[in-house]
Order: sequence, then structure tokens, then C-alpha cells
Amino acid sequence: MSTRLDGRSTDALRPLKIETRVQKNPEGSVMISSGVTRILVAASIDESLPPWLRGKGSGWVTAEYAMHPRANPHRQDRDGRRGKVDGRTTEIQRLIGRALRAAVDMKKLGERQIVIDCDVLDADGGTRTAAITGGFVALAMALDHLRRTGLAAGALRAQVAAISAGMVDGKAMLDLAYVEDSKADVDLNVVATGDGALVEVQGTAEGPPVPRAHFDTLIDLSLGAMPALMSAQKSALASIGIDLDLLRG
Amino acid sequence: MSTRLDGRSTDALRPLKIETRVQKNPEGSVMISSGVTRILVAASIDESLPPWLRGKGSGWVTAEYAMHPRANPHRQDRDGRRGKVDGRTTEIQRLIGRALRAAVDMKKLGERQIVIDCDVLDADGGTRTAAITGGFVALAMALDHLRRTGLAAGALRAQVAAISAGMVDGKAMLDLAYVEDSKADVDLNVVATGDGALVEVQGTAEGPPVPRAHFDTLIDLSLGAMPALMSAQKSALASIGIDLDLLRG
Amino acid sequence: MSTRLDGRSTDALRPLKIETRVQKNPEGSVMISSGVTRILVAASIDESLPPWLRGKGSGWVTAEYAMHPRANPHRQDRDGRRGKVDGRTTEIQRLIGRALRAAVDMKKLGERQIVIDCDVLDADGGTRTAAITGGFVALAMALDHLRRTGLAAGALRAQVAAISAGMVDGKAMLDLAYVEDSKADVDLNVVATGDGALVEVQGTAEGPPVPRAHFDTLIDLSLGAMPALMSAQKSALASIGIDLDLLRG
Amino acid sequence: MSTRLDGRSTDALRPLKIETRVQKNPEGSVMISSGVTRILVAASIDESLPPWLRGKGSGWVTAEYAMHPRANPHRQDRDGRRGKVDGRTTEIQRLIGRALRAAVDMKKLGERQIVIDCDVLDADGGTRTAAITGGFVALAMALDHLRRTGLAAGALRAQVAAISAGMVDGKAMLDLAYVEDSKADVDLNVVATGDGALVEVQGTAEGPPVPRAHFDTLIDLSLGAMPALMSAQKSALASIGIDLDLLRG
Amino acid sequence: MSTRLDGRSTDALRPLKIETRVQKNPEGSVMISSGVTRILVAASIDESLPPWLRGKGSGWVTAEYAMHPRANPHRQDRDGRRGKVDGRTTEIQRLIGRALRAAVDMKKLGERQIVIDCDVLDADGGTRTAAITGGFVALAMALDHLRRTGLAAGALRAQVAAISAGMVDGKAMLDLAYVEDSKADVDLNVVATGDGALVEVQGTAEGPPVPRAHFDTLIDLSLGAMPALMSAQKSALASIGIDLDLLRG
Amino acid sequence: MSTRLDGRSTDALRPLKIETRVQKNPEGSVMISSGVTRILVAASIDESLPPWLRGKGSGWVTAEYAMHPRANPHRQDRDGRRGKVDGRTTEIQRLIGRALRAAVDMKKLGERQIVIDCDVLDADGGTRTAAITGGFVALAMALDHLRRTGLAAGALRAQVAAISAGMVDGKAMLDLAYVEDSKADVDLNVVATGDGALVEVQGTAEGPPVPRAHFDTLIDLSLGAMPALMSAQKSALASIGIDLDLLRG
Repeated sequence: MSTRLDGRSTDALRPLKIETRVQKNPEGSVMISSGVTRILVAASIDESLPPWLRGKGSGWVTAEYAMHPRANPHRQDRDGRRGKVDGRTTEIQRLIGRALRAAVDMKKLGERQIVIDCDVLDADGGTRTAAITGGFVALAMALDHLRRTGLAAGALRAQVAAISAGMVDGKAMLDLAYVEDSKADVDLNVVATGDGALVEVQGTAEGPPVPRAHFDTLIDLSLGAMPALMSAQKSALASIGIDLDLLRG
Repeated sequence: MSTRLDGRSTDALRPLKIETRVQKNPEGSVMISSGVTRILVAASIDESLPPWLRGKGSGWVTAEYAMHPRANPHRQDRDGRRGKVDGRTTEIQRLIGRALRAAVDMKKLGERQIVIDCDVLDADGGTRTAAITGGFVALAMALDHLRRTGLAAGALRAQVAAISAGMVDGKAMLDLAYVEDSKADVDLNVVATGDGALVEVQGTAEGPPVPRAHFDTLIDLSLGAMPALMSAQKSALASIGIDLDLLRG
Repeated sequence: MSTRLDGRSTDALRPLKIETRVQKNPEGSVMISSGVTRILVAASIDESLPPWLRGKGSGWVTAEYAMHPRANPHRQDRDGRRGKVDGRTTEIQRLIGRALRAAVDMKKLGERQIVIDCDVLDADGGTRTAAITGGFVALAMALDHLRRTGLAAGALRAQVAAISAGMVDGKAMLDLAYVEDSKADVDLNVVATGDGALVEVQGTAEGPPVPRAHFDTLIDLSLGAMPALMSAQKSALASIGIDLDLLRG
Repeated sequence: MSTRLDGRSTDALRPLKIETRVQKNPEGSVMISSGVTRILVAASIDESLPPWLRGKGSGWVTAEYAMHPRANPHRQDRDGRRGKVDGRTTEIQRLIGRALRAAVDMKKLGERQIVIDCDVLDADGGTRTAAITGGFVALAMALDHLRRTGLAAGALRAQVAAISAGMVDGKAMLDLAYVEDSKADVDLNVVATGDGALVEVQGTAEGPPVPRAHFDTLIDLSLGAMPALMSAQKSALASIGIDLDLLRG
Repeated sequence: MSTRLDGRSTDALRPLKIETRVQKNPEGSVMISSGVTRILVAASIDESLPPWLRGKGSGWVTAEYAMHPRANPHRQDRDGRRGKVDGRTTEIQRLIGRALRAAVDMKKLGERQIVIDCDVLDADGGTRTAAITGGFVALAMALDHLRRTGLAAGALRAQVAAISAGMVDGKAMLDLAYVEDSKADVDLNVVATGDGALVEVQGTAEGPPVPRAHFDTLIDLSLGAMPALMSAQKSALASIGIDLDLLRG
Repeated sequence: MSTRLDGRSTDALRPLKIETRVQKNPEGSVMISSGVTRILVAASIDESLPPWLRGKGSGWVTAEYAMHPRANPHRQDRDGRRGKVDGRTTEIQRLIGRALRAAVDMKKLGERQIVIDCDVLDADGGTRTAAITGGFVALAMALDHLRRTGLAAGALRAQVAAISAGMVDGKAMLDLAYVEDSKADVDLNVVATGDGALVEVQGTAEGPPVPRAHFDTLIDLSLGAMPALMSAQKSALASIGIDLDLLRG
């Protein structure tokens, strides 16, 4: 039953595409598109840790999120070029960092850092969750690089993906496009692992507060999409010969 | 059954105190303490809106969160004094703003802004939720000021409070103090209204991903604390003659 | 003979109150109120010196002054949050730092720093002098902490307090409240020690230049208030068992 | 005779590819690759001019240049995210802006601005000249958008492209890749128009000063490449139905 | 009786020179040297007031103080080029601004601003007082420009000059050079008018607090130098045909 | 044949004056004037290199360019005082740095830095080239200081000077004043050495693109002026006893 502008059913993902090796230099490199939303993700291995993390025998994973000035219908200034970094940007890149750190065993990563750069080229809703889903693939490529070069092995702890869901016109809908998101009563982002465990849940009632049952329904809907997301991640990695099982501890 | 350092049961709040009129100038003024955590909250009515909100017949509620340099055992620089505002600060003040906007009917507020300043004087965990719970009281004082001066009436949409919960040593516990929070596997913040509807849910697995059932348990625990929080807010307001029913639309 | 709005005589201080131990963490902690003006002062011992002071066998005392956004009738941005720190703030915190450094023997303090944070919660004139008077009490608490823990002894050089005076409607008046200060012809701040020696004198003719005799009168008036200020400081310290004589070299 | 690492003759361009419509929102959108160097260019029509240009009946063209953090073998901070924008970035985006302004009749453009965003995804030398060559195509797409919507006609003044050349091991070589550029004695950037006129010439002796004859040779070499660059621009535009002649005044 | 390194008596000024018209563009332009200290001062008439001063029928005088990177034996960064403006700079330029505002009748100046730029080319103590003394001459030139062009008349309220004095080795000395200043116990800056009235007094005990009598002696010494300073200002102005009496109200 | 406002022939320099030792502290100190344009240049020897240059056995030469707020008819903010450094400033100081690095053998300079500060006191066109021409003299003074103190010898590689030329009303003209520059079709800056080799050529068609022949003519014109510039540099240095031949390797 279709109730959505693009003909999708309420529990359907937008067309999802994950390309790898789209830049020359990064150890992990991904272009993920979810409907019109399209994000370039680069995972960089940095052998130097920030000062406050050194000497503890552990590594770190961090993220930067950047909106291309013309990812949206109207041009916006680049974050940081004129004055300070936008609060929304800060909030999103902290979420991406936390989500992807859940995928990694920091002790086994060793004293190095993996930086995940997420550049939104086209924005149509769901950029933070697509950045996490694509970011995991780039991260796995970087972990595979460490494995192949003998620098770190077994550092993968869990496969991680993310999706959003929301209540629109009283219906729970998965993977909101921008026009849906802008009229949603609740907006929920769920980060989860391959075995259905939760990494992060963030739900906001954009308008009036909502009953708890709605949150529960949206979490169900989001968790239901995880197998498809995980499968897409695995396919993208398999096509370049990377097997997640070889990356686990 | 007490399993906690301070002898509390797992579902007990820390001692909660809400004082009002603790500063001379703000329209709403509150000192909230939850155990050792203590936050000064000021609500200021600002008759000028930021440019992007003008001329739309609606108002706005926003928040600033500032950690006193010595709210913690070691002195920290003031945010913004040396370089940029910390990412954690940005994330927290955006949460407080969203939470308190849920309490207000922006059309009835009219073209003005209420700014909620939250200064953490002593930090011992739970500062963001205490800032929301105390912030609601300061906000209600500011709405009452608008009502008494005839500038805006009926702008209160919902009573809002917040609390945190987490899984510590395999047990779900309410209202974590810092030592508990630092070893929690999951940390959940819940913002809800007087009738049990949800405004925002933010849960993060700090370590390994966790089963969904843990999130459900923590939400239950948090919602169970709402009546006590709401009652404390009402008592603080009643003691200065403010009745929330008179502020509703 | 009373000529002032609040009924004070021209040479009378406003009601002065100094509370201690108002925050949990700082080694020195004070709330000072002078009439409506109210300032939270924290003294923090920092065992690391700034680079340009290291290795010289001496310590340092420095101050930060911050106006709460709603210390005044209209809300102001926090210094540093939007763009640069205000010039007035810079000027005041440099004065506080110089004044309190006069109280300390830097060699005996040793290679550590004491940072005095002054947060103005309610402003009604005289904030910089109240910050110095209260700051001395917080500083003495920090010195006593060093003495008790055996880290540094005998580092107190002098008891220091400060007050303002001004010419209002042709009369010399002590300890101006904001409404008096805003119409004063001359505004003088005096920092002095227990034995009547001067640490700093800053006098400005706000309007037309004034005869030197006026400056002399205002210095007399200010020095006349020192015994009362010093006594209030000693009482506050005595109530928590601190004797200045034990802190001297 | 090939004397170069990649087998090119000294006067040969690297493989050049210009794709259009690679982003959804910009009025002009181009991905240009020159060998490994690859740049995403977006041209955005902005109907509001900066204040200092308003009311003069003329338009403006400006550029922003941004290096992706991983366009190079080692990750670099994003410009502006930590502290100020890099001097090299400033210098390059000023060059791109000047070069592309030469292509436009500002009176006919009218009181609006076209912003050219150049994001370097892969860097291997020649990024500033590739940004100009690709930027012209994006600019023409934006001018065509203005023509089709009836907002501005005839605003194209000249077709503009750019290329670099340098003296490497005593030989003049066209279109240097990074490894060549890093050992070049002279590095020259030439911006020219379809009829061989010059827009900008920038030549720097990286090591010892060089005879004027070398500069002359490098300008010859660069001008010799212009027909091929212009032809590639025209083909890219023709493939989406844009004819430069229709854009001229 | 000479007790000083340069053979001066304790109450002698250093050689003072005031040149005018040393830059082409400013309405007032002065090079003042006092011994080795040398400051370029420019007074600029700005017909636009800052927003917070507009529409009140009054003008404003403000100052900027900038140390040349090599005014001192070791090169220092330019203020503001790397991070924020130095606190000392802020404090000094606020003093210069207050001092020179005392010279002007703001109502008669009208809704315009005079900006006094003070660039220290060679620093050897006393830069802030020399900037005020030289700044007055530049200011008078700007007021004369306004008078001659008919824009504002009678705006001069008082002739203003400044000098420093200090206690060195137990002796009160006038106009300290850097080597004297660095070992002074007290450092006093006095701003005064032609008839001996005081505009600002700033005295700091650099080391131990000092008896009030020392401050009195230093004020006497400073006031004793005013006739010579005023005379030098008048001579410099007379040499370009400016008579202060014509500028008064 | 005179075709210019000031009666100069098209190939004539403006009156050029180079004074030395105009500040007390810098190792190299120059005031250069070219017509009305007047620039204070200081060369400072800094024994500490920036981190990225340390340990390589080489030195560095860098430049800062600063426009005095009143170097132009209207007052401008100082760069960096309010927000970021202007793009034009960045571009110019990078050019000056590159130009003067061409004069120095970095190995022979050793691990130290020479900083060239260029303060434009009066601006009337040609400031960047005058800064280079004067900067060379200051640089040579600093190299002579190193030679005399035995710290570095033979570090001079080439004598360097710079001049601008442009096409005005269809005529090639040397050394443009501001009024000429503002109506020039092409503006060219040439940096060259004593033996006619080129260090940098920067030419921009300010309006319509121009034939290559014009660039060639302007380079000829600029190179023709080099002997006069070099001679003025040598005379200025000779008058303080510095012989360039003694500075060469």
C-alpha cells in the first residue's frame, strides 16, 4: 500500500547505493546514495593520536560532517569559513563519531586514529544516518588496510548501520525524504548492529509531544530495516574482496 | 534494596531542590540542585527575534549552557574564551532548547524570544536533564510575567521535565551521579510531559551495543520519575503564586 | 545626613556580605554581595604554570571576570561566545589580577598558579572592587589549602581589599550604586592593604576634568572604608577557621 | 619523444574529462578530471549581492576553493574548521574569481552574483587551472539558466580556460603532475580566452631566478594547449544542449 | 642633580618632539617622540557613527593602539593576526579613548566619530602617555579641519596631555624610560588639562604596596610637567597655523 | 613625451627614495617612498623557526604586509582586528615572501628565519612592488648583521627588485600611480634580479582579455627599470657601508 509521494510503502527504504574506491587517497572511500541524498565518505588512518589520548594503548575513531554549499536548493556558507561551525554540524558529527566507535575495539585498533570525513553532496533528508551506514563501509576498508599491512588485526567489534523513521500524517514511515521529514511529528534516528542490538536512539517530537507507543513503533520500523542495510554494506565490501569476518577479533 | 554508593534504590531520584528568584533581573530565575549537581537557570524575555524568525507571527525559545570553570574537580577554560565553543556544550544546549520549545505554543508567545541561560555551578552528572527540569520552571516564570503584563497569554502548551537513567553493572538505575555515569553501559536521557508523552529520547550505548529491552526498561524507569519531577516544579511555582493552568491556552 | 537614594550617608558602605564554601570544588569559594551587586568568586590552584612562567621558581595569580548574561536589566551575550571578549571585561580582569598579585609572595607560592574566577550574578555598580574584596577571601582559602597540604607556606604578603568612590552632584560619595555611578563626575577605584598602603588607584573624570582636590578627597574616603572591608574579610575567614597571620611569611 | 613519467610528450595535456550535472541543485555543475586531479565545481546563482556591490546595476562572480581533507596522501584539516583559512587557499580562490570574471559582462549579468565552488576531491597538481577550466563550464551552465529563465541574456563576454606549464630538468613541460611540479624550476599558470588573448599570467621561479626566455617558452606552450581545452569545454556543454554563441551579447 | 642613566634630573622630561602632517591622508597626523619612544598618530574623521551612538545628536572619539612587531628588541606578533587582541592593548586603547574624549564637547562635534590610530614604531616606556599627548595634537588638527570646512565649530572643551612618573630606587622620577620603568615600585599615569584639572589617574604598585604619600608626590611631579607638554602641543599646532582658542566653544 | 598626469614619460619611475635605519630595533630597517606611496619595512632575525621547518638545516624568509588604517583616503579597519585577515593582504604578503626568498640561499642562512614587516603608511599604487624593492634592502641589512656577528655568511643569492607596469588608454606605462592603476586594462608586477632573470611575473587583465603582445611589452618596460631600482638599492646600502658582494656566497 503506497501512501508516499515517491510511491514507497511506509516500511520501504529509498533506493540505496554504496560505491567504493571513489577517491584515490583515503584508506576507506565510499559514495553512498539513499534516494537523492548522496554523501562522499572518506576514512583516513592517522598514526598520531590527539594529545589527550596518547600513551593509553588505545585508538580512536572520530568524524567530520560537512555540507557542500550547494547540497541544498539555496547556497549556504561553508561551515567555518565565515565565523564558527554550525551547531547542527557539531551535533551530527558527534553522533557519527559515537556510532562508528561502537564498531571498533579500541585496544585492538592500537594507538592510532581513524577519521571519517562525510561530505554531503546532495541533501534530501537522512544525511546523518546515511553517513553512518556509508561510514561503516569506509571504516571497514580502513580496518582491512590495517589488517593487510599487519598494523592491527581483529579490531572490528560490530557491524553498524543507521536509519531514520518518523510519524507523518499519523503514520509511521521509514527513511524520510526531506519533504516528509519537514512535516513529521516525530523524527527518530536509530543506530544498531547486525544482531539487532542498539548503539544509539535519538527521537525528537518536532511538534506536540507524542505517546510512547509511537516511539516504540518507530524503533520497530527502524530495526526492521537493519538486515537490508547490513546486506548492502556487505555486498559493497564483498565486491572489493573484504569479508567482515576476517576483521573481527 | 540499596545497591548504590549513596544508598539510593535503583529507581530513586537524588534529593531535588528548586529555588526561585535567585537573581534580581531575569523574568524567570531558578537554582536547581539534584544531589551535588547545581545549576543556575535564568529565563530572559527578549522582544527582538533573530532576523530569520522575524515577521512570521511566531516566537522562539533558545538555550545557552555554560559550565563554570570550576564546576568540576579540575579547572577548565570557559567555553569561547580561548577558541571555539566545545562540541559537547553545543550538543547540550541544542537539546535543552528543543526540550523547552516543546513546552510553548510559539504563535501565542508572539514575536519575541525567551532565552534560557543554564550555568552549571557544581557538576555531578545529570546536568543536561536538571537544566531542562529547572529551565521549565524559569520558563514558566517568564510566561507568567508575559501574562501579568498582558503581552502574551495562553502560551504554555505542556509541562516538561527530564531525567537520565542508565545500565550500571547490569542494573537499570535512575538519575545517575557522575561515578555511576562513568561506568554505565547505556546512558539515556528522557524528556517528557506531564501526561507521559515523550518530547525527546536520547540513548547511547557507551560501550558494547545493548539489547533493545534495556532501552525499554530505561525509558520505563525514566517515565516513572516524571510525576515526582513535575510535582517539584509545581511546588516551586506555587510558592511564588504561579499556577500552570493559568498559563495554558 | 543622608543625601542618597538608599538613605546611606556619603561615607557609608552598602550592606556587605561574604559567604564562603558556596561551590563544592574550588579550593577557595566565596559569594560576596555589596547591596544588590553579587559576585561568585572561585579560587583554583593550578599546578601547571603558563609556558612563559615556568622554571623561574615563582608562581602567579590571575583572574577571569565574567558577567552573567542577565546580571543587568537587559540580557547581554556571554563574552567570547559571539566573537571577541569585550574590552571592558579585559580591563577589569587585568585590574583584579594585579590587585590580588599584590597580596602574594610569588617565590613562596612556588611554581603554581592560582586562578580567580569572578562571575557577576547581579550587577549594581562596584563589581570590580567587590570582585577584589571577595577575591582576596577566596585567595586566602586557597593559600590555606596549600598550607594545610604542605605545598606552600607563608605566601601571604598583604591583606588586600578595594572600594570605589565618586563625585555625585558635587558631593564625594563612597561605594556608588549603579544609579549614582551613572551620574558621577569622577569615578575612583582604590585597592589598598590592611596597613593603609596603596596597591592601585584608578580615577577617571567621566565628564569635565576635575580639580585635584576632588581626587584627594575620594582617596581619603576610600581609605577610610578599608578597616571595615578588612574586618569583613577576616570574619568570613575566621568562621571557617582561617587566620591570616598563619598564612604570612 | 617521451621524457615524462607517464609517457606524455612535453607538450601534451593529461587525459581531460568534463562531466556535467553531477549534483542535483546547482545551476551549473561539473566534475573535471585532468589525469588524477579531480575537482567538483558548482555554480550557484545568488540573487542577492554583497552590500558593497548593491545599487550599481552590475553583477559579480566569485569563487571558493576547498581542498577535501583527503585529496592528498596525508589528511589535512579542513580550511576554517580549526582557525583561519590557509593563505594558499585564499590566493587560489582569488585567482579563480578574477579569471572567471573575465568571462562575464557584469552589466548584462545584472544585480546578482554567481558563486563558483571548487572542491578538490583528488589532487595531483594543476588544481587551480583545472578549477578555472571546469569552472567556466559550470559558469556557462548558470548563464544558460539565466537566459532560459529570461533573467539575463548576452552576459557571456569570452570563453576562458587555464593551464599550467613549467621548466623541469631544463625542459619546458605542459600540464605538470604533482611529481613534476615539485621539482620544477619555474611554475607558470596561464588563463586565456578562445581567441588567444590573455586574462592572467602568473609565473614563479621556485628555485633560482630564470631567464626571461623560459617564461616566453612556457607562455607559448600554454597558449598552444588552449584550443584543446576550449574544445573540451564546448563538447561538454554541447552534450547538454548549450551553445556558447547563444550566451554572448 | 642627576641620578638617572641618561643624566636627566628626576623631574625632567625626555627630549620631546612633535611633528605634524607626517601622513598624506589623515585629517590629523602626528609623529611624537619622547626620548627613544616614537609613535605615529593619525586622527580620522568618520562621518558614520557606530549603531549604538546614532540618532542622539552627539559624536564620539575612540582610539586604536598598535605596537609595531619590531618596536621592541624582540619581534612580537601583530595584535589580532594570530588569535585575539592582547589584553594590554585593549587596556591602553581604552585609556587613550577616555583621555581624548575629555577634550571634546560631543554635542558640538555632532553625529560623527574621530578615530585616533596610535602606532608605536619604537617603544622605550611611556607609550600610552605619549600617545595621548600626541593624540591631542592630531585631534586638534581634525577639529580644525571640521571648523574650516564648516562641519563643526567650538567642539574643543579642554587641552589634554599625559605623562608617567614612578618611584625608582626610592626616588620619585618623571617620564620613565623602559629600564627605569622595569624596576619602578610604583608606576603612575596622569592625564590632565591645561588648567591643572585631572582627567585620569592610574597608579599601580608593581611590587609591594606603597604609602599614599608616594602617590601624592608622583601626582605633583606629573602635574608639574603639564605646562611643558601643553606648550609643546601648542607650538606644534601653531607651526601649521592652528590656534586652540579658535577651536573652543 | 609626457602623457601622464604627473608629467612623467611612459617609461619613467616615480621619484624613488630609500632611507635606512628608520627604526631603532630591527636588524634591517627601511623607509621606501615611490611618489606618494610610502612603506616602512623592518627585517627581523628570528632564531626560532616554525615547527614544520626545524631540523632540516635550512632557514626561511617570510613577510607580513599591513595597510595603515589611514594609508588611503578613507579609514579602513586594521586587518585581523575585526574578524579575519583580508584576502588581498594574504595574496600580497605571500608574493613578497616568495620574491625575497629568491634572494637568499636558505642552506647558508641556517636554521633561522628573517621576517619582513611591510607597513604601508601612504598608499598610491605599487605598494607590493615597493615593499619588495625596499624589503630587499632591509633583508640585506639583516644578512649583513648575520655576517658581522659571524652567525651566517654568504647567504645572499641574488639582488631582487620589483616594479609594476600597465596598459592605460592603450599605452604601456611604467610604475602606475593609483589613478592610473584604476583605469588600466592590464596590470603587471615583475620581480627580477640584477642580471635580468625573472623571479615572478603576475599579470592580470582587469577588463577585457588582452593580446599577448601587450604582456610582452609590459615585461620589457618593467625589466628596463630594473637597473635604476638596483642602483637605488645599492646606494642606500652603500651609505651605511654595506656591499652586496660581501654578502654573496
